[in-house]
Amino acid sequence: MRYEESVIEGRNAVLEALRSGKTIDRLFLLKGCQDGPLLSIARMARKQDTLIQYVPKTRLDQLSDGGKHQGVIAYGAVYAYASLEDMLALAKEKGEPPFLFLLDGIEDPHNLGAIIRTANLAGAHGVIIPKRRAAGLTAVVAKTSAGALNYTPVAKVTNLTMVMEELKKEGMWFVCADMDGALMYDLDLKGPLGIVIGNEGEGVSRLVKERCDMTAAIPMKGDIDSLNASVAAGVLAYEAVRQRMDR
Amino acid sequence: MRYEESVIEGRNAVLEALRSGKTIDRLFLLKGCQDGPLLSIARMARKQDTLIQYVPKTRLDQLSDGGKHQGVIAYGAVYAYASLEDMLALAKEKGEPPFLFLLDGIEDPHNLGAIIRTANLAGAHGVIIPKRRAAGLTAVVAKTSAGALNYTPVAKVTNLTMVMEELKKEGMWFVCADMDGALMYDLDLKGPLGIVIGNEGEGVSRLVKERCDMTAAIPMKGDIDSLNASVAAGVLAYEAVRQRMDR
Repeated sequence: MRYEESVIEGRNAVLEALRSGKTIDRLFLLKGCQDGPLLSIARMARKQDTLIQYVPKTRLDQLSDGGKHQGVIAYGAVYAYASLEDMLALAKEKGEPPFLFLLDGIEDPHNLGAIIRTANLAGAHGVIIPKRRAAGLTAVVAKTSAGALNYTPVAKVTNLTMVMEELKKEGMWFVCADMDGALMYDLDLKGPLGIVIGNEGEGVSRLVKERCDMTAAIPMKGDIDSLNASVAAGVLAYEAVRQRMDR
Repeated sequence: MRYEESVIEGRNAVLEALRSGKTIDRLFLLKGCQDGPLLSIARMARKQDTLIQYVPKTRLDQLSDGGKHQGVIAYGAVYAYASLEDMLALAKEKGEPPFLFLLDGIEDPHNLGAIIRTANLAGAHGVIIPKRRAAGLTAVVAKTSAGALNYTPVAKVTNLTMVMEELKKEGMWFVCADMDGALMYDLDLKGPLGIVIGNEGEGVSRLVKERCDMTAAIPMKGDIDSLNASVAAGVLAYEAVRQRMDR
């Protein structure tokens, strides 16, 4: 297991990484620079749907380890991302209905790590995260996942709603956690299920929520608004576990 | 709500804080110093069971805001601690059997904040934490509790096992989360209950576990060892919530 984040600096190194098919989580390019090599890097990155951020030189200097970034710094994924097919195959192999986690914009790497850990122990077959406005598989995530990243596949997708439409064709149902839903005990969480967890501050986005078949409310007996995102994911996932165990 | 941690520096300021009964979470004193005022501060702090750390001058200089520490820096609790009586009174006032969380050495302030948040929403009447080897009510905890600290009383006690013995006399039962226990669905979590959550790395300590009436196992369907501490607290607490709702 490698916990260190892979940082790649300089034109040749980043070009080589992109050519070899290495997954880049974030790419920082010098703002306003129209150099041939940098344009090539941007073109290749865009082809692979990599998130590009154009930043001033001072920002690159801050991010750089040795100061030799030549206008480009890339952050590689610590772990390789999986595909949806991997997850569905895993469910099939285990002879279980697919059980997936979809994270609609979890930004805190500690939460992401804790949720991957929960997904593993709840017996889920994978975790799907979006490319934009969300934490990727960084070193902190790997560490807080407590090893779960070695077992539970994580897929990074461009468009969460499109993936949901695809998975619905495979017979999956989706439930999101939200206060205005039905009490989670009253929902049937037994079949091929995707649990959708929203962003820490804003919850589940409208477009994703519209594609959910069910909205589950966790009982709230207190004074504040909501549970921590990773706790909410755990509580809802374990309600599904209980139902699947017929308890 | 105040989120900033209260730092008190200098001999007179710290003496005054101690005299006024302000709760000091941690006290840093200059190592080897046998000055009269510092000895008085140490004596008063010890009387109030405050955790004292003797550190070299360089450490104090690092911790100091203005460099005028005179050999002593104290960290005041951001929030006032409550007493056990407060919690039992709150339960009585609500006409509910007491429902408490006992944290046996949670060290990560993010976990502590998330657990206080969960305690609030699960309808618990309070959270009990030990003085030693545990996170106190710092600014990070206040922030991650998302406001729950304003509603859910937190007590800080010298000896967790003694408190458990006391509460048992009041008719309370204790359940801890541990892998070698009975499946949590098979336990009765309805009465006056204390949920015990262990340290992030080491779990529940032996002496505390010996005083628990039940050990609850959360179903583990994956490859790794354990859930994140705040997720485990949430899952077990919500099993108690489900049973208390007769669902």
